Amino acid sequence: MNFLKEALNLAAKSIEFGDVPIGAVVIKDNQIVGRGYNQKEKTLDASAHAEMLALKNAAKTLGTYHLEDCIMYSTLEPCCMCAGAIINFRIKKLYIGTRNQRFGCCGSNINLLTGLNHTTEVEFLDDPMCSEIISDFFKTIRKENNK
Amino acid sequence: MNFLKEALNLAAKSIEFGDVPIGAVVIKDNQIVGRGYNQKEKTLDASAHAEMLALKNAAKTLGTYHLEDCIMYSTLEPCCMCAGAIINFRIKKLYIGTRNQRFGCCGSNINLLTGLNHTTEVEFLDDPMCSEIISDFFKTIRKENNK
Repeated sequence: MNFLKEALNLAAKSIEFGDVPIGAVVIKDNQIVGRGYNQKEKTLDASAHAEMLALKNAAKTLGTYHLEDCIMYSTLEPCCMCAGAIINFRIKKLYIGTRNQRFGCCGSNINLLTGLNHTTEVEFLDDPMCSEIISDFFKTIRKENNK
Repeated sequence: MNFLKEALNLAAKSIEFGDVPIGAVVIKDNQIVGRGYNQKEKTLDASAHAEMLALKNAAKTLGTYHLEDCIMYSTLEPCCMCAGAIINFRIKKLYIGTRNQRFGCCGSNINLLTGLNHTTEVEFLDDPMCSEIISDFFKTIRKENNK
């Protein structure tokens, strides 16, 4: 299964409620155990980021917050809150679709995935679809604002 | 109202389910609008920290995640996930009961409250009750483990 594609499918769900399209999945033994998409505007909750929801969903599925055997895919590089959640849930490895040069906290701006209470390995996939879905979203917003 | 005392009262609730006693409150116009206590073990959710829950509770109370006019009290210095949440919810000022020298991300280990997408002012209160409630908790745990 293409896990990044699954995360992208989730990201597309964010758009309906005006949320920036970001998706994430948590995987154990090659199976998706947690899914999340950004729903900050939908829920009026600034913590309802894709990665946070995918982690909580995985913990619920597995009945534990010890996700040491899990890997994760996120379409966009996590912010510092989500990077913190990733180490709190002890994710083994994180694959990132595209960088967030300004606010990414997994290597682009700062790196929180190492040096604190857990180390999560990180790999950037530099997938153009993960950046395009976001730039297309903002293009549409600007077009609508100029109408 | 003594807001730190209110946060300490919340912290005491964590103990029943074996959670480290940490509490937090969010205040707007001198009224508590959000409350949280650490319930990671109770809920098997590594994101269920006191500060995170207090922020989500405040956003629900106020119907917005824009908490620019709010201040916050936490009995313990927030971890990086919660420091990230505090800037995502745009808290104006954070009062911290006691430092977390190892993992505190508001100045002790690193400082995430400035330099990212929002700056939250921070003040350490160095309240002995906030550290004692935690050290007493761990003393009790050790005593029980040695029985």
